[in-house]
Amino acid sequence: MKRAVILLSGGLDSVTVLAMAKEQGFECYTLSFNYGQRHDVELVAAEKLSKQMGVKEHKVIPIDLRSIGGSALTDDAIDVPEHHEVGIPVTYVPARNTVFLSIALGWAEVLSAQAIFVGVNAVDYSGYPDCRPEFISAFEQLANLATQAGVEGHKLTIHTPLINMSKAEIIQHGIKLGIDYSQTVSCYQADNKGRACGHCDSCYFRQQGFKQAGIVDPTRYQG
Amino acid sequence: MKRAVILLSGGLDSVTVLAMAKEQGFECYTLSFNYGQRHDVELVAAEKLSKQMGVKEHKVIPIDLRSIGGSALTDDAIDVPEHHEVGIPVTYVPARNTVFLSIALGWAEVLSAQAIFVGVNAVDYSGYPDCRPEFISAFEQLANLATQAGVEGHKLTIHTPLINMSKAEIIQHGIKLGIDYSQTVSCYQADNKGRACGHCDSCYFRQQGFKQAGIVDPTRYQG
Repeated sequence: MKRAVILLSGGLDSVTVLAMAKEQGFECYTLSFNYGQRHDVELVAAEKLSKQMGVKEHKVIPIDLRSIGGSALTDDAIDVPEHHEVGIPVTYVPARNTVFLSIALGWAEVLSAQAIFVGVNAVDYSGYPDCRPEFISAFEQLANLATQAGVEGHKLTIHTPLINMSKAEIIQHGIKLGIDYSQTVSCYQADNKGRACGHCDSCYFRQQGFKQAGIVDPTRYQG
Repeated sequence: MKRAVILLSGGLDSVTVLAMAKEQGFECYTLSFNYGQRHDVELVAAEKLSKQMGVKEHKVIPIDLRSIGGSALTDDAIDVPEHHEVGIPVTYVPARNTVFLSIALGWAEVLSAQAIFVGVNAVDYSGYPDCRPEFISAFEQLANLATQAGVEGHKLTIHTPLINMSKAEIIQHGIKLGIDYSQTVSCYQADNKGRACGHCDSCYFRQQGFKQAGIVDPTRYQG
């Protein structure tokens, strides 16, 4: 059976990607990171959804990106802003996707997996440089030079099925695949029950997505 | 002052690279990883040498590559072989350099550093795919797409000053720069005093290097 490593934050996008990888017939291995993020309650969602969706193995790797800092998500001195600033937002975590994909690459090699799935999105991607198609394409090229599998000619593919979809399209597709979005956590400052703030970039894009999809927003909000 | 992040294992190569970065006038930030390696005594050497060589800051980031496994260095069930097998050795750690460079990239971005130095070597590199020039070049391309700095046109360069040097040349150069190699730890199974086994790939290349350089080997051996 063909295998895939899926980067799973526990948010709306990555859970949809997991459902898509399953639909494509992959045996799924989900990978989450405890990187010192404010909203680490998303890891509870990732664990729960991995079980519900029948993944083969779910791994949470601790990696202290707080010791590097430089982001509102990993430095308590920088507040999470309300939507919507111009340019790259302060919630951007330096090199986060590069780090996460690299570790996924290591696990993919150990598993002899042919694919890594990641839920990056170029439409409403909040201005993060490491969500762009040219970044993903450069990473795929790197991946096939970096590993023993690559040297031996076993090509690894980076799948980004959401990259050209709007949030509304992602939600509509996920609903068809049976996802219960009330269990996913997107908010950058969700409380310890997984309830969203309703004000940050991530909440904004999610709210707009449900509205445009014409689907009742099942998100649990604070207060 | 121009800044550089230097990947510092505490071994002969990376310490030489640090001395070279200093010589080139960079303000140096050294980065080491506690990744579950057998020979974690190398971290003691990295800390000590960072202080002695006047680096601005030394950071050790824990990242559990044992939970991925797949290497003699991170899985106790796989023995470190004696020199010299054919092909990619079992001491290869899947995607290790990709992971390390990615985290260095994150720190470089936070520091507004223009350079990352890494001691990869294509001459006697033990067959690791992630030590080849084409890998480094692909990573540099990725790095400049991955970050906010890259988007804004501040190019980051990956420096690999050892890539075409023999071990003997590295040692001769390091001696000129005043390095005390007795304090570096190269052995894959060094004991907790930093003393080498004398039998593994890493010990073999190091011994050959001193012999060919015509320099007395200052390495401390077990037993």
